[in-house]
Amino acid sequence: MSFRHGLRLLYCQLPLFSRELTRTWCRYVSSSLALRSETRASDFSSFVARTNTCGELRSAHVGQEVALCGWIQYQRQGLFLVLRDFQGLIQIIIPQDEAHSHVKKVLYDAPVESVVRVTGTVISRPSGQENPRMPTGDIEVKVKTAEVLNSCKKLPFEIKDFIKKSEALRMQYRYLDLRSFQMQHNLRLRSQMVMRMREYLCNLHGFVDVETPTLFKRTPGGAKEFVVPSREPGRFYCLPQSPQQFKQLLMIGGLDRYFQVARCYRDEGSKPDRQPEFTQIDIEMSFVDQAGIQRLIEGLLQYSWPNERGTITTPFPSMSYAEALAEYGTDKPDTRFDMKITDVSDVFRSVEIRFVQNALLKSQGTVKAICIPQGARYLQNKDLESLKESAKSQFNQEVLHLILKPDGTLKSLLSKFLREEHQLEIIRALKVQADDVVLLAAGEHKKVCSVLGKLRLESANLLESRGLVLRDPTAFHFLQVELESAPHPFTAPHPSDTSLLYSDPGKVRSQHYDLVLNGNEIGGGSIRIHNAEQQRFVLEAVLKEDPELLSHLLEALECGAPPHGGIALGLDRLICLVVGAPSIRDVIAFPKSFKGHDLMSNTPDYITPEELEPYHIQVAWPAAEAKANKN
Amino acid sequence: MSFRHGLRLLYCQLPLFSRELTRTWCRYVSSSLALRSETRASDFSSFVARTNTCGELRSAHVGQEVALCGWIQYQRQGLFLVLRDFQGLIQIIIPQDEAHSHVKKVLYDAPVESVVRVTGTVISRPSGQENPRMPTGDIEVKVKTAEVLNSCKKLPFEIKDFIKKSEALRMQYRYLDLRSFQMQHNLRLRSQMVMRMREYLCNLHGFVDVETPTLFKRTPGGAKEFVVPSREPGRFYCLPQSPQQFKQLLMIGGLDRYFQVARCYRDEGSKPDRQPEFTQIDIEMSFVDQAGIQRLIEGLLQYSWPNERGTITTPFPSMSYAEALAEYGTDKPDTRFDMKITDVSDVFRSVEIRFVQNALLKSQGTVKAICIPQGARYLQNKDLESLKESAKSQFNQEVLHLILKPDGTLKSLLSKFLREEHQLEIIRALKVQADDVVLLAAGEHKKVCSVLGKLRLESANLLESRGLVLRDPTAFHFLQVELESAPHPFTAPHPSDTSLLYSDPGKVRSQHYDLVLNGNEIGGGSIRIHNAEQQRFVLEAVLKEDPELLSHLLEALECGAPPHGGIALGLDRLICLVVGAPSIRDVIAFPKSFKGHDLMSNTPDYITPEELEPYHIQVAWPAAEAKANKN
Repeated sequence: MSFRHGLRLLYCQLPLFSRELTRTWCRYVSSSLALRSETRASDFSSFVARTNTCGELRSAHVGQEVALCGWIQYQRQGLFLVLRDFQGLIQIIIPQDEAHSHVKKVLYDAPVESVVRVTGTVISRPSGQENPRMPTGDIEVKVKTAEVLNSCKKLPFEIKDFIKKSEALRMQYRYLDLRSFQMQHNLRLRSQMVMRMREYLCNLHGFVDVETPTLFKRTPGGAKEFVVPSREPGRFYCLPQSPQQFKQLLMIGGLDRYFQVARCYRDEGSKPDRQPEFTQIDIEMSFVDQAGIQRLIEGLLQYSWPNERGTITTPFPSMSYAEALAEYGTDKPDTRFDMKITDVSDVFRSVEIRFVQNALLKSQGTVKAICIPQGARYLQNKDLESLKESAKSQFNQEVLHLILKPDGTLKSLLSKFLREEHQLEIIRALKVQADDVVLLAAGEHKKVCSVLGKLRLESANLLESRGLVLRDPTAFHFLQVELESAPHPFTAPHPSDTSLLYSDPGKVRSQHYDLVLNGNEIGGGSIRIHNAEQQRFVLEAVLKEDPELLSHLLEALECGAPPHGGIALGLDRLICLVVGAPSIRDVIAFPKSFKGHDLMSNTPDYITPEELEPYHIQVAWPAAEAKANKN
Repeated sequence: MSFRHGLRLLYCQLPLFSRELTRTWCRYVSSSLALRSETRASDFSSFVARTNTCGELRSAHVGQEVALCGWIQYQRQGLFLVLRDFQGLIQIIIPQDEAHSHVKKVLYDAPVESVVRVTGTVISRPSGQENPRMPTGDIEVKVKTAEVLNSCKKLPFEIKDFIKKSEALRMQYRYLDLRSFQMQHNLRLRSQMVMRMREYLCNLHGFVDVETPTLFKRTPGGAKEFVVPSREPGRFYCLPQSPQQFKQLLMIGGLDRYFQVARCYRDEGSKPDRQPEFTQIDIEMSFVDQAGIQRLIEGLLQYSWPNERGTITTPFPSMSYAEALAEYGTDKPDTRFDMKITDVSDVFRSVEIRFVQNALLKSQGTVKAICIPQGARYLQNKDLESLKESAKSQFNQEVLHLILKPDGTLKSLLSKFLREEHQLEIIRALKVQADDVVLLAAGEHKKVCSVLGKLRLESANLLESRGLVLRDPTAFHFLQVELESAPHPFTAPHPSDTSLLYSDPGKVRSQHYDLVLNGNEIGGGSIRIHNAEQQRFVLEAVLKEDPELLSHLLEALECGAPPHGGIALGLDRLICLVVGAPSIRDVIAFPKSFKGHDLMSNTPDYITPEELEPYHIQVAWPAAEAKANKN
């Protein structure tokens, strides 16, 4: 057995090169390449002290002298090491001859995760010793010189994706967490996707990227806006929740087409998977109607969609809020799977069950059901009980379940009240098959829909946790939901309902819709009010807001405001869904915890009364507040 | 005389089509086209209710049916009107026949600046009646239908560039000011130039666009950071002055190349031409040295430079701080004109003037001068007195002036002390010509340089205000100034001075330089400290800052931090210089006044004590403060 062969054997035994690591890595590399292939090739080694990145080396580089910079992923007894950079891993062969004893010592002594620069020659790995799971697995680099650029202390966790870390630890050492392939991939994909969006908007469709202020005035109903004290006593800026007013003012200013990757702020206290600052793709156009904005957003997403996630087809399906509620029990339906809500009121009209009849007699009274496929096989009794308990506790709604037995009969508490014809009608209406479970609820339309919509998602999650795949994890279902009756301060009424606004505002259909992806709201758009009188009426009479806070916008609308509309996409959520991350914190470089803290730097932090003096504020400590209240 | 011909005559008499307007407009259109020619052609009429923009129509469109949307710039007795959009002006011929009486009435009744949509046919103007100063001057549109989309009230000022408005009025009605060709041009050029920067960084050189938080922790010495109260009593976020820490942490996280068009905040109170929020092109790279960053920034500016402003050549000239001070008396020399500071100490060593000898005897004592070309012809006595008074009041420095008379003698208070040989030496050293004025100062090197540097600029401004062109307004002079001795918390010492850091930190040359354009600092870059121990020493021992505030960064530097460096470009200032605007407020859509106010919306504004309650702060009114101090 040659020395080299022995080295290979050692190498194969390393736990480091587990399947997890190489799998993650290959996934990352292929997706990264797929994205880049559409744009001009990037030069990743311009301006710096390397000739190549570690991860880009291939057989074509054999014979080349290279200079590489990277982190020591692993080092084995001064024989070889694996060097890592953002593009991948490369195996480095350490020379064993006396002439290179200094090189050997330098690399032998350097702790894992130290930063080194090496020069050497790219060589082929001996035949049969290639690693097909590694993109650089056909080659290795024989080192000539080596220099430790910075040494690394013992780390709180290893930089390997398959080593599970608590999220708190990841956040505290975010700069280490960012070295993971997953975070590198997420942030790079985000950057590339946003760049494609910019190309689409700016280069292809003449949009102007305009930066709008984040130190602004409180907006009506802006209770969730952070305040920023100014140096003038009692006067505050606010951090706006969106550039809404500015984008409308830009249209009035004749900018015609505006977009911005806009930082927005919302102080919602502690909320899971929300961030006090977030980013939206903010778009506004003049002379556009609802269809125009929908075509724009479809084109934008199609153009910027990463190759690695397949292609998306347009136009996106569209649904009214009424349909979404009736079929999915929510304004953001997850249309990747069926299990739609079915109205079985007609079946139950002739069934003598007191509580059902009571429900049907009431206004908007209905009986509705969903069918859980294979529920009897995949769900246990306690699962069904927990679903029903969830309906009870969250909605105060009774839900009954029925199971279709292989013999064709429905097993249920209701069985004795249901004649065979009723049972058959239910089975037919819901297309129930053997071992399916039907969840049934009677009551007011909207409530029953909401309950069953919730149970639809909960039971789908349960089924999937038991191994039944309902939702294709590679599928992306976009959906436009028309929210005809959403009251919004700036949304224009449907053209044919304009006069209704003054007589019966509750009946006015508005021109607002949400963009939904896989059951998540990722955007909202609308045609805005461009008539000053109408805007004033909506603020004062309909929404009971003080129009004084918006006097500048009202005056602007009198000065030749073009008809306009727009949309805002929640970028963090969108990228999160595209990369399949469990949380938006995985697509943000330095996110806050759900309490709004930065765990790395201990933010927010105390500051001295002297530092507050220029802003003419002082802290009202709760104890002092309590005391003051007592007096 | 035909009706059409009469209409032409009317048209020619209109004050509206003054040379000012068409000049402005032509400049705008040509520059806008120049920029766009480099990218794929934009479709400005996708998704909306028009076929074309007003400004894009040319002879090639003759015969086409078009739908246009725009603002009424001018309307004349129901005969024709001029419609404006962001791309330009188009003449609309209103049909006079009975069948179109409705169209005529609609357009006749609509006030100026109302928004209309018209459809019609593009026709050639009759031969000889073209307007060559108007890009659409060969054609006009014969209207078939017209619709007023929104009427306009009487405006506080007309939308014509040549009508001068006070800045306060422009700011109060910013949405009207934005309709000016100049503001449209500035914002569009800004958008396009930033887009080109993104292409260079992201597509060509593999940079990752990463968004970093703006709700962060106070940084050491961060007295100018706005504070943002959180919902936890006494705890505050701060709005950072730059993403400095984050970009370093991203390098430690292995991102390799980062950039961001970053919103930054600095609370400097009232300062002219500063904004409380501003934007910088923020760049950081791993494994780079100073030369690498300089090449990057040169490439970036060259690539993104707008065609309409010519081309820029690289590499940019470079100068040490010492040279800049000695020759230009400032760290940001305007190298577009000469008038360099010249040391004439040697001449004066043998001149018996008490105050000069006293100055020369002191440490760093010098006699220096600048030569104002044609000063005696262009400047009056009171100008020279005011220059000297400025030196006196700002620097407490006496300055003398000498005038070279056509007869070859120097006229000056010093004349009687200056022998002919001295006079000749001065004339030779400063290349003085007849009617030039020499300003002379004696004292400590740095002070004298600073005074003369200031006077150099002031006298250049005076000369130019009198009609002598010193600085080519189309010239762009970039300059890299190496600030070897700037103390900065994160800047690495020059490699050969590392050991000096611990023994004699004052002598350490640092790796920091500024980028200067036409005498304005537009950026600053440096190689950062990547060694934790060195960073701690600089913070604690050199800068006397509490390292605790930066403990996360110090710990990160111990975890395998790569060598790294970067640069930040002040985007507002850069664009301001590129478009030649008098103030950065002209390249920002919604700027604040020098007091930090938004005059349109009355920001910052008072908010109620109830709105402050969730943040556990209360206003310390000055009266109450004063009272408290008394007690």
